[in-house]
Amino acid sequence: MAIRINPFIDATAEPPIPEAMSWLPEAGVTPDRPLLNLAQAVPSYPPAESLREAMSKAILDPVTAFYTPILGLETLRKRFASRLSETYDAPVWESEVAITAGGNHAFCMAVLALAGPGDEILVAEPYYFNHTMWCTMQGITPVALPCEAGDGGLLPDPARAERLITDRTRAILLVTPNNPTGTTYPTEVLEAFLDLTKRRNIALLVDETYQDFLPEGTVPHRLFQDPAWRDHFVHLYSFSKAYSLTGYRVGALAAGPVLMEAIGKIADTITICPSHIGQLAALYGIDHLDAWKGARRDDMMRRVVALDAAFAGTPGGFRLVSRGAFFAYIEHPYPDRGAKDVARALVREQAVFMLPGPIFGDGQERYLRAAFANVDEDGIADLGRRLAEF
Amino acid sequence: MAIRINPFIDATAEPPIPEAMSWLPEAGVTPDRPLLNLAQAVPSYPPAESLREAMSKAILDPVTAFYTPILGLETLRKRFASRLSETYDAPVWESEVAITAGGNHAFCMAVLALAGPGDEILVAEPYYFNHTMWCTMQGITPVALPCEAGDGGLLPDPARAERLITDRTRAILLVTPNNPTGTTYPTEVLEAFLDLTKRRNIALLVDETYQDFLPEGTVPHRLFQDPAWRDHFVHLYSFSKAYSLTGYRVGALAAGPVLMEAIGKIADTITICPSHIGQLAALYGIDHLDAWKGARRDDMMRRVVALDAAFAGTPGGFRLVSRGAFFAYIEHPYPDRGAKDVARALVREQAVFMLPGPIFGDGQERYLRAAFANVDEDGIADLGRRLAEF
Repeated sequence: MAIRINPFIDATAEPPIPEAMSWLPEAGVTPDRPLLNLAQAVPSYPPAESLREAMSKAILDPVTAFYTPILGLETLRKRFASRLSETYDAPVWESEVAITAGGNHAFCMAVLALAGPGDEILVAEPYYFNHTMWCTMQGITPVALPCEAGDGGLLPDPARAERLITDRTRAILLVTPNNPTGTTYPTEVLEAFLDLTKRRNIALLVDETYQDFLPEGTVPHRLFQDPAWRDHFVHLYSFSKAYSLTGYRVGALAAGPVLMEAIGKIADTITICPSHIGQLAALYGIDHLDAWKGARRDDMMRRVVALDAAFAGTPGGFRLVSRGAFFAYIEHPYPDRGAKDVARALVREQAVFMLPGPIFGDGQERYLRAAFANVDEDGIADLGRRLAEF
Repeated sequence: MAIRINPFIDATAEPPIPEAMSWLPEAGVTPDRPLLNLAQAVPSYPPAESLREAMSKAILDPVTAFYTPILGLETLRKRFASRLSETYDAPVWESEVAITAGGNHAFCMAVLALAGPGDEILVAEPYYFNHTMWCTMQGITPVALPCEAGDGGLLPDPARAERLITDRTRAILLVTPNNPTGTTYPTEVLEAFLDLTKRRNIALLVDETYQDFLPEGTVPHRLFQDPAWRDHFVHLYSFSKAYSLTGYRVGALAAGPVLMEAIGKIADTITICPSHIGQLAALYGIDHLDAWKGARRDDMMRRVVALDAAFAGTPGGFRLVSRGAFFAYIEHPYPDRGAKDVARALVREQAVFMLPGPIFGDGQERYLRAAFANVDEDGIADLGRRLAEF
């Protein structure tokens, strides 16, 4: 007889990307029609050559093979805090940031610090599936806060959120720019959520992994300008997307002193410290790659223009509902067909690989997510043609 | 009003090493008496130059900046499984191993897969504090299985363990070679524990982070030779110590299919994948550094000889209770003084930095842990002289 698995882990769904990947062998690829892979949110471009060269030198130094402090290299924490201060036009201090082994790790630690079994976290839906998976694993109930595509413009509604708060609610989780929809939340919406969390004495987790892809000069929000952010707001970030460092596993979070004390214990226990060379890569990015990162952002903005053009005629009845940063959210034209069926048929018949909406929550049967960071402008034009043909 | 922290996190003690580190400014260092740092278990030697050079080349390749599969690079899983098969003289397959972001991460995932809030895990005491910290964070009660220094020779007793098992017990955790004591468990003891876990249908977690420092040709145990290992035994490993890669954050675990399915979900959610370059460093180590690793093991064995010599005369009344791999466990001569008081006085008066026993569990007031991986043979001889003077 085998051992018993933790029921919370049994209750957690399998990661959905491997299942969707299993459709790929049946992809209708021809010499003229290569696979258009719009599934995983991975940048299509390599990291900067100058970064790779700098890391190639750094890794020769034995010191890079050793542990760093638990919450990250002091220089990196200092520079990341300064960068937050510049971006959000508000003071954020070194002691208020932690470097993590990627954005997921930052999220997992923040949730563990805030909530335990039996607690609830409001999660804007559609959601990033790893977020709800972690809640379920921890015995925390992820309570869906539906964001409607119609009048709601896929934005979360603070009044609706307030009605969902119970005495077990510990936090509200938002992602902006959003994964899976690409929607960017206006600062007014985020500020209304901060007010709500202040009133109800809970936390506001905002995953800003795709923040670097906002138009140049945008202040993403004004939450850091309210000194009370320290008692409620947790900023989550990843270096993976902006600098194309997914394999380096480096992310960050910012929070006030109460949460940071908890994060210190958790970080020590799970990873001791993030990858040393990963941290040096992040530091190199902040110090040297503003122009390079800006060029990648401009690439993404051009892809957004290409998306708008490709969907202007609602090709094959597919409608672009929202787009921004890395993602487009697309409504398919078949009220009677499930999104998984449509997504799989698109792989088979047009070699177009998008993820079905239900991966991201209930009520998403009419939607597909396209991660357009994976394809260039020509690929996006091609997507339009293939959907028209479907 | 600030947010509420998860009570399980509040109940978790601070990581103890930073507190002990705060004594260092008062260290009685003189020009003739530098600090003897025997606190943290970090190899004192850099990673192999050939490894650093190979990684310096590998990191130039953009592919190393991207995600790997969730459970690690296929080549590394295959090679690590083969290495386990050779070392333990039993078949272990690629599908039965996962690469992790360090040994702690491997442990955290295995525990989360097996136990939830309200459950219990038997933990051989003295223990490695991060192990009990993670249990407490997860609402799991770490139940101490005391290992007595006297007749018990610091070994865990399966009969005593069996009396501690309740219907909430999900696993037994052992560490061999042990941290903090340096004791190596004979295969007969480990096999008795595997029998016990089979009879009681629970899991046996064995952390073998320091396995590479056993005498050449040693088969650490015969657990993998019992095909039923897959239903109960979980092997935990770290590449950090053998290859001196602490900052690369790469470890591993081996387990049967039921557990491995759970690990797949958990790994995706916490880290997506381990550091890519870290995995390449581990692969390089397995493929090219047997001789190099053997030389490090021989260094450690010479330090053990030096320890035995330094403590032959029970200097200052300090008695060497156990030693092996990276660690020595030392009894101090003051029945009426706490270990923390003695450890701090040793820092102040002799610039000798060891960790007090109570960091590793109850009933440890008479002991100090020396991590001798940090100092060479001269340092160890010096340790004997300074203890004699104390």
